[in-house]
Amino acid sequence: MLSFESDYTEGAHEMIIRRLVETNLEQTPGYGLDHYCESAKAKIKEAFGVPGADVFFLIGGTQTNSTVIASLLREYQGVVAVGTGHIGVHESGAVEYTGHKVLTLPDHGGKMDAGELDAFLEAFYADGTFEHMVIPGMVYISFPTELGTIYTKAELETLHGVCQKYSMPLFIDGARLGYGLMSDSNDIDIREFASLCDVFYVGGTKVGALFGEAVVFTHGAPAHFFTTIKQHGALMAKGRMLGLQFDTLFTDGLYFRIARHADEMASILKGIFLEKGYETFIDSPTNQQFFVMTRERASELHGKVRFEDWCPVDEERIAVRFVTSWATTEDNVHALRDII
Amino acid sequence: MLSFESDYTEGAHEMIIRRLVETNLEQTPGYGLDHYCESAKAKIKEAFGVPGADVFFLIGGTQTNSTVIASLLREYQGVVAVGTGHIGVHESGAVEYTGHKVLTLPDHGGKMDAGELDAFLEAFYADGTFEHMVIPGMVYISFPTELGTIYTKAELETLHGVCQKYSMPLFIDGARLGYGLMSDSNDIDIREFASLCDVFYVGGTKVGALFGEAVVFTHGAPAHFFTTIKQHGALMAKGRMLGLQFDTLFTDGLYFRIARHADEMASILKGIFLEKGYETFIDSPTNQQFFVMTRERASELHGKVRFEDWCPVDEERIAVRFVTSWATTEDNVHALRDII
Amino acid sequence: MLSFESDYTEGAHEMIIRRLVETNLEQTPGYGLDHYCESAKAKIKEAFGVPGADVFFLIGGTQTNSTVIASLLREYQGVVAVGTGHIGVHESGAVEYTGHKVLTLPDHGGKMDAGELDAFLEAFYADGTFEHMVIPGMVYISFPTELGTIYTKAELETLHGVCQKYSMPLFIDGARLGYGLMSDSNDIDIREFASLCDVFYVGGTKVGALFGEAVVFTHGAPAHFFTTIKQHGALMAKGRMLGLQFDTLFTDGLYFRIARHADEMASILKGIFLEKGYETFIDSPTNQQFFVMTRERASELHGKVRFEDWCPVDEERIAVRFVTSWATTEDNVHALRDII
Amino acid sequence: MLSFESDYTEGAHEMIIRRLVETNLEQTPGYGLDHYCESAKAKIKEAFGVPGADVFFLIGGTQTNSTVIASLLREYQGVVAVGTGHIGVHESGAVEYTGHKVLTLPDHGGKMDAGELDAFLEAFYADGTFEHMVIPGMVYISFPTELGTIYTKAELETLHGVCQKYSMPLFIDGARLGYGLMSDSNDIDIREFASLCDVFYVGGTKVGALFGEAVVFTHGAPAHFFTTIKQHGALMAKGRMLGLQFDTLFTDGLYFRIARHADEMASILKGIFLEKGYETFIDSPTNQQFFVMTRERASELHGKVRFEDWCPVDEERIAVRFVTSWATTEDNVHALRDII
Repeated sequence: MLSFESDYTEGAHEMIIRRLVETNLEQTPGYGLDHYCESAKAKIKEAFGVPGADVFFLIGGTQTNSTVIASLLREYQGVVAVGTGHIGVHESGAVEYTGHKVLTLPDHGGKMDAGELDAFLEAFYADGTFEHMVIPGMVYISFPTELGTIYTKAELETLHGVCQKYSMPLFIDGARLGYGLMSDSNDIDIREFASLCDVFYVGGTKVGALFGEAVVFTHGAPAHFFTTIKQHGALMAKGRMLGLQFDTLFTDGLYFRIARHADEMASILKGIFLEKGYETFIDSPTNQQFFVMTRERASELHGKVRFEDWCPVDEERIAVRFVTSWATTEDNVHALRDII
Repeated sequence: MLSFESDYTEGAHEMIIRRLVETNLEQTPGYGLDHYCESAKAKIKEAFGVPGADVFFLIGGTQTNSTVIASLLREYQGVVAVGTGHIGVHESGAVEYTGHKVLTLPDHGGKMDAGELDAFLEAFYADGTFEHMVIPGMVYISFPTELGTIYTKAELETLHGVCQKYSMPLFIDGARLGYGLMSDSNDIDIREFASLCDVFYVGGTKVGALFGEAVVFTHGAPAHFFTTIKQHGALMAKGRMLGLQFDTLFTDGLYFRIARHADEMASILKGIFLEKGYETFIDSPTNQQFFVMTRERASELHGKVRFEDWCPVDEERIAVRFVTSWATTEDNVHALRDII
Repeated sequence: MLSFESDYTEGAHEMIIRRLVETNLEQTPGYGLDHYCESAKAKIKEAFGVPGADVFFLIGGTQTNSTVIASLLREYQGVVAVGTGHIGVHESGAVEYTGHKVLTLPDHGGKMDAGELDAFLEAFYADGTFEHMVIPGMVYISFPTELGTIYTKAELETLHGVCQKYSMPLFIDGARLGYGLMSDSNDIDIREFASLCDVFYVGGTKVGALFGEAVVFTHGAPAHFFTTIKQHGALMAKGRMLGLQFDTLFTDGLYFRIARHADEMASILKGIFLEKGYETFIDSPTNQQFFVMTRERASELHGKVRFEDWCPVDEERIAVRFVTSWATTEDNVHALRDII
Repeated sequence: MLSFESDYTEGAHEMIIRRLVETNLEQTPGYGLDHYCESAKAKIKEAFGVPGADVFFLIGGTQTNSTVIASLLREYQGVVAVGTGHIGVHESGAVEYTGHKVLTLPDHGGKMDAGELDAFLEAFYADGTFEHMVIPGMVYISFPTELGTIYTKAELETLHGVCQKYSMPLFIDGARLGYGLMSDSNDIDIREFASLCDVFYVGGTKVGALFGEAVVFTHGAPAHFFTTIKQHGALMAKGRMLGLQFDTLFTDGLYFRIARHADEMASILKGIFLEKGYETFIDSPTNQQFFVMTRERASELHGKVRFEDWCPVDEERIAVRFVTSWATTEDNVHALRDII
């Protein structure tokens, strides 16, 4: 059955598969010390214009979030995120498991408001009892957010400014980074993105790779981050699998091209839904699209196409999510027209 | 340069690569809920004769060790292991990071002695202050050990008996399980192995897969182990990558055939070293072979072939490790004859 | 200066001091194995009508909360509490430090609504992705709450029923238990209180002791709770200090008498505030009283009497807290009449 | 029955009791923000000659150890200690519970050898795989040790030098500090002690107080250490109890006088044992004395006087421990002559 359930239903982009086949019997050192990782790191630093950055490859998103967050916080600190932030909801408490509280602010279409962050921090330090509370130590946002929305350059600048005012690193979860950067609505240049935060990751799992997230510490990594990765069980023995995939994705702009394709497919898909009279649940400019429909209709559609029920809207209606990816074909999208 | 550095220098067995290619664009649900995982689990349960077991797929060894151990221990408990045990040395404190102490017993060629374990536990509970100490909650061993040695059936039965006497689960790290079970020196039948412990894992990373470890809880898994996996950052989004690999490895006995091959290559390799007058550091019947040589000789050899310096033996000599794998060819091994 | 800042500004009730003096040079075993602890435990079990309970003495509230919660949860579980719950706000993330998330429900005057808890749990388990979230493992409430309010017997019964429906222990933070049980508004008999939850503690620090909280596991303690206490740094070497204090407090009903006195003082204090035209911020029937006043008025009063600014109410007004205790005299309360 | 079981069998020195009585109804702010704590901190800084130090009061030893260690280590680091170190044995894994491994070196009469520490660190960093291990982040020793022995000034200087060479703070557990500093065998001046380490604590629980340990960070405390204390459940609400006790102990040298007395009592006690023909298990110059006797003799003596069986010596004999304290009278010690 046709599936728009997520952007991780297929394997990897064919170029990646081809190189896996070609290099399969090559012998390389383990743990990311191979030449593929070296090459991939160089290409990522080049693409984002951060020659002085430190790049590391981890395997999945939850793992990357909890490892990076733990490496940046001291034990008495927590991470500030919005209520819809992935770390606070769908990661089984992986951040708390490392000892840190997720301090929650309200979300606005999945985004954090810089003014609210500033007000929160000002009130926090104005409270005479703040030393009895968890000290906010960093800020976590996602780009695009869990609702497919993206920050404007101005929003990100302001948010980063508030973080700097309080000496808190800004960490951007880029599990779907490509889909955000290549969106028609995005006004941030790839080469300026890195300067708007302190650490981010380039999601591979959801953008063409079998797995893998490339963490970029724009001003250099915390001491012994390699050991932290190992301690978190996030170090891949055959590290070249990660290097090879990111090297391929960052050769000739493949990562961005396939992300752009998914965004285009999402745009067509949205058009079809609107044309059919559906309302959007939120206006997403990236590869995740959210619509409102009756429970009955959703239930009926589940028999014809795979997608995710997102959340209840009211007694009768729910929001649903349709996701495109690098692997979505135009035929697949158009097939929806006859189904929905 | 020829490398005997480890058993994770190549990619995966060609059958695995072939199936990755074939299935690449298939759409499957994420997180291990796909049919490949289902099929692989059934084949593993069949191979080990444990129809009632619960099987889970994780990505790497350190991750698997810390996740399984944390799931079996209560906060006041620790895990008993020998001093050479992987969890106590080369895992960056991943077990302690989850809050648990590794309680150390002496090793005997990498193995734990059942009598010493029994004596330790008897003395522990005889000590009036034991409640001020870490309560031993489980036992960790590896098969084969970090030194390539394996337990006899009698040894494992006795050890398991001691564990049962104190109601402690016995966990076997099988990162190299195939190489142990297929060793000429092994007297344990595959179908009786599972009955000699409470949980073990079938290492894929070092035995033909790109990555992956199959955890087998012989009497059923702890409650919510899926959530524990997620919390540890060990849940793979495209879980079928794990299912597909193990399904391939457990089709027509591939896992055991390629492990057997590695053991045979190791046997030839050992013969060549002995023939050339080297002494073994320890008599290993599996794919890791340890020899003693002068530091000078080792240094010279490093220019011609890759291998690992293991540890100092005395002022002048060190132990070195040569490892074969499923990917080692007879030609490679014979090439050593002219080098060493 | 007169202080109504908190209920822990003085030392201990004179009876406790007297017994500390009398017994000072007696030699007793450490760690709570002395006869004072034994006697105190028996008296507490008698007072609450729970002969089969297990009683332990810890030192302070935050410590008790994080130790008890950690002992009851498995690593993949979190504790449900309302947003104003002490564990989620003023304990510096002590619960998260042990690896567990605090799952937050809205508060109603500091209280949890049983219907909302039920709805939350029903929705949680109805969500197909719940295994990717933190599993709710227990419920934490306080009696009285951080806002001085108390649950009715019917409310507590319903809440406990919901907990039982989902097999979650109900834990009551009784840091100010005496002040709740002796309130005129309380309809729960002391001897039935224990049956309405699974574990609670009898606060000593805020009710007449120098320090100390008596934890009562009504159906018996988790295995090795003594070791858990030690591991949390919560085991007092001279444990008899705790036993002696609770033995004194539970001799001839002293604990309840002095709590009753504080509630009476609070009632007079509230009358004076109302008489002077102040509004209550919340209608508290226990020893913490909350009033609304302008920031200017509060600032002026701070020069004459000690109390705590609680939270902003609007641009101009704030809520303030005045607290009575076992040590508050009628003269002190009446002195307020001329000040406010 | 006469007891030499430990140095925490009685309450507190009479001067402390007297001041508790006198100040009992005084109202003070909580959490150590009172004038007694201020005064005590000043006196401790004066006594140890460290005007720039930061002093904090915690409640007990295990708590102090795990809180200080967690505050000084990053997540990927461990603490180096000898095998007999209290943190590795009798603290129920409190250090591991905060995520850190205790890295063990052999002890020499309870002491760490600076040369062995240096060799360990040199070998550690020479090992190409050190990033896969726990990074040594600090050193823990006790003064006196768990066996009553003390470091000479030269030993401590050398050890501190090795720590500085590797940028590792040296932490001294001074649960019995007074008994060490006042020993006849001690060659370290009180005012130079602090310069030989980076953080230490002045044990109160075992030296005259009801409870309490004064932590001295000689070069200033880690950021937000107050919050760390709270997070560890180690913050006392009525903090003045700690301030008052240490203020008393550090008025007119009371702390040192009573420690000196205990050492003198120990010296007499040792003389009596030697006179009676017993052998020492270890030659301790402080208040803990260890002798060797047959199991039979020990068993017989347990009927007449309280003391602790320490460890087996051989099939027939065990080591036993007799402890004096500030509260031991000369009569008590002489009474032993007729018993042993």
